[in-house]
Amino acid sequence: MSSPLRIGLLGHGTVGGAFDELVSDRAEAIESATGRRAEISGVLTTSIGDFDQILADSDVIVELMGGTDTARDHVLAALAAGKPVITANKQLLAQHGAELFEAAERAGVQLRFEAAVAAVVPVIRVVQESFGAVEFTKVSGIVNGTTNFILSEMAATGASYEDTLVRAQELGYAEADPTDDVNGADAAAKMAILARLAFHTPVTLDQVDFEGIESVQPDDLNYAKELGLSLKLLGFAERLPEGITVRVFPCFLYGGHPLSPIEGPFNAVTVEAPEITEVTISGPGAGGLQTAAAVLGDLVSVVTGDAPTHSVHNDLPVLSDVTSSFYLHLEVADESGVLAQVAKVLSDSGISVKSVVQRGIGDDARLVMVVHQCQESRFKTAIEEIGRLDSLRSSPRFIRVIEEEFV
Amino acid sequence: MSSPLRIGLLGHGTVGGAFDELVSDRAEAIESATGRRAEISGVLTTSIGDFDQILADSDVIVELMGGTDTARDHVLAALAAGKPVITANKQLLAQHGAELFEAAERAGVQLRFEAAVAAVVPVIRVVQESFGAVEFTKVSGIVNGTTNFILSEMAATGASYEDTLVRAQELGYAEADPTDDVNGADAAAKMAILARLAFHTPVTLDQVDFEGIESVQPDDLNYAKELGLSLKLLGFAERLPEGITVRVFPCFLYGGHPLSPIEGPFNAVTVEAPEITEVTISGPGAGGLQTAAAVLGDLVSVVTGDAPTHSVHNDLPVLSDVTSSFYLHLEVADESGVLAQVAKVLSDSGISVKSVVQRGIGDDARLVMVVHQCQESRFKTAIEEIGRLDSLRSSPRFIRVIEEEFV
Repeated sequence: MSSPLRIGLLGHGTVGGAFDELVSDRAEAIESATGRRAEISGVLTTSIGDFDQILADSDVIVELMGGTDTARDHVLAALAAGKPVITANKQLLAQHGAELFEAAERAGVQLRFEAAVAAVVPVIRVVQESFGAVEFTKVSGIVNGTTNFILSEMAATGASYEDTLVRAQELGYAEADPTDDVNGADAAAKMAILARLAFHTPVTLDQVDFEGIESVQPDDLNYAKELGLSLKLLGFAERLPEGITVRVFPCFLYGGHPLSPIEGPFNAVTVEAPEITEVTISGPGAGGLQTAAAVLGDLVSVVTGDAPTHSVHNDLPVLSDVTSSFYLHLEVADESGVLAQVAKVLSDSGISVKSVVQRGIGDDARLVMVVHQCQESRFKTAIEEIGRLDSLRSSPRFIRVIEEEFV
Repeated sequence: MSSPLRIGLLGHGTVGGAFDELVSDRAEAIESATGRRAEISGVLTTSIGDFDQILADSDVIVELMGGTDTARDHVLAALAAGKPVITANKQLLAQHGAELFEAAERAGVQLRFEAAVAAVVPVIRVVQESFGAVEFTKVSGIVNGTTNFILSEMAATGASYEDTLVRAQELGYAEADPTDDVNGADAAAKMAILARLAFHTPVTLDQVDFEGIESVQPDDLNYAKELGLSLKLLGFAERLPEGITVRVFPCFLYGGHPLSPIEGPFNAVTVEAPEITEVTISGPGAGGLQTAAAVLGDLVSVVTGDAPTHSVHNDLPVLSDVTSSFYLHLEVADESGVLAQVAKVLSDSGISVKSVVQRGIGDDARLVMVVHQCQESRFKTAIEEIGRLDSLRSSPRFIRVIEEEFV
């Protein structure tokens, strides 16, 4: 009979507790898959356990404590001791990925982290293993369930962002302090990890520009519905001739986009490359049990296989100014010549208009335009100029549009 | 420097040729991922190559020749010689899986076959590795792109099955002899493989009941559209208290089902279990290059990791009579009492009606009903009885309905 697989568990909160239970509930399945009986050999929380003792007593360390200080120390210590590590800690990887991957490679042990991005949606494995020799051109993801729930609800009910956030909090889809979810920071950390893996290039968290959904208006969603578009908070990483771009922003998707049907608190990631066309993976991107299930998948792999070591063999610049297509929403005085003024600013900036809708609202008018791909810096300068026009009734609002057509 | 990775390639048709090119086009990426340079050390076709020599000169055998006789002999010989094997051959696995898995386990080498089901959509890896210790309750899949293209086109254009098949052939989405695609046999082979892996139980091809899409009428798709349903050829495997069911049939899905938005020649598979809720993977399920890309993913894994050996530790009965919900389409004489007659047959059989729509068409009427979950054998007996009613103008038609509600 094989020796038991001794798991040192760091952290016993929602995910840690769910993982602990799952290991005993699925004991038979784990033994079938790995040939070894799994047992939790020690638990570390802020009140119980001694890390050194747990490390000595374990074959594998599962880090579910969160934070980036003590967690980093423990993960590095475990790797240095030749113990494989599984973590669900996205901030740890986004902020200290380079150091951790290097430590794992030096020690020749596995560092697995499926649960750090999109919980049980197996995007890390698919990017690293299924497509280990694929040269990705693009990674697009709905990687924050809170914001996807809020946008889906706003589209369905017409309610305001503020009211919908309260509802999301009541339903447990948003935290009491939702800042990092709604402002895009959480998605940015996940995209930093994904872009690093997909493009084999160092990406640090501060290189990921992000915008949130706080200023999305019910109006924007009404226009989206009319135009057959859906509004998503998208993580977007692309390989361009000059480098890569890694960003998070709210944007409109056309109906045929594989991420367009993803509704509610779900996550989904689409990866693209010429040889795979596009592949999309979707499912629950949060939840204690679902996150624990992703950790369990990593546990089985730690025992049964040698994961490809993540390699950084490129050093691509991360670009901050790229081209995008935009939806532009203006409230203007309903008088002749306003459209001409706006159109002139855009045209002088070399920005070409794809479609325009103008509608009266009382004494004012609403002007909604979609402009073709243009340099973002140029668009923003033009928007500032438009914002200074006398006929503007409120600040211009804009949202990116993904123009890509899928078959 | 590491020794090169010598690949013995059996078969050089569409997929074999694409794989050969991909290995040289992606040489650098393969070397980065595996640490070894890959080279094709020999090619076997019906006109060139000697298998024994190729086997002796190779570190891994890639079987892309198709068929189940010579292919089986070569795969078994390679495994017996301790060489890992990668195959894209679904019939080989569906018909001889038990023997091949056993041979791989005995030899202690990897047998990988991602491309055999849904080409580059990485469902095999996700089921076996990401969810290696998950006890699946259900696997639903659109695993035949030809039929999904035809049904999507029929829904979009209102054209007949026959005309749409011709169009699919013109576009290269259907073969000159489309029999195995349109009658469900191709999907059945893939579902036999998936069910075996998901439920760790022997499933033979003859245990998979399948129905095709040949008798789907434009009418059915019109009703589907009105009711917000989509019509798909679904592979469906479920774990029930008494055993498992593995089947292929056309069916209606509600709008919230994760497979409902999958249109055109795409494949997608949804796996379900309490701890993962549901995870869906979608993408191109065919194409030479895309299939070759799946083979390449397996190649990287053969070098860098030890795949969990597929284990059959259950022996669950495969059930042939289960419960389903049905859509029932009747053309009847437009006279009083017909609905009552039909309702009585259903009611006497203990079948409960969920919804009814009756519409006049000239002197006749069309009666469309959806009935709740009932034993399939009981439903079919009732349908035979209804078919014998004098007021019936043509044979009753029915299509299953997946009632499952997704959040």
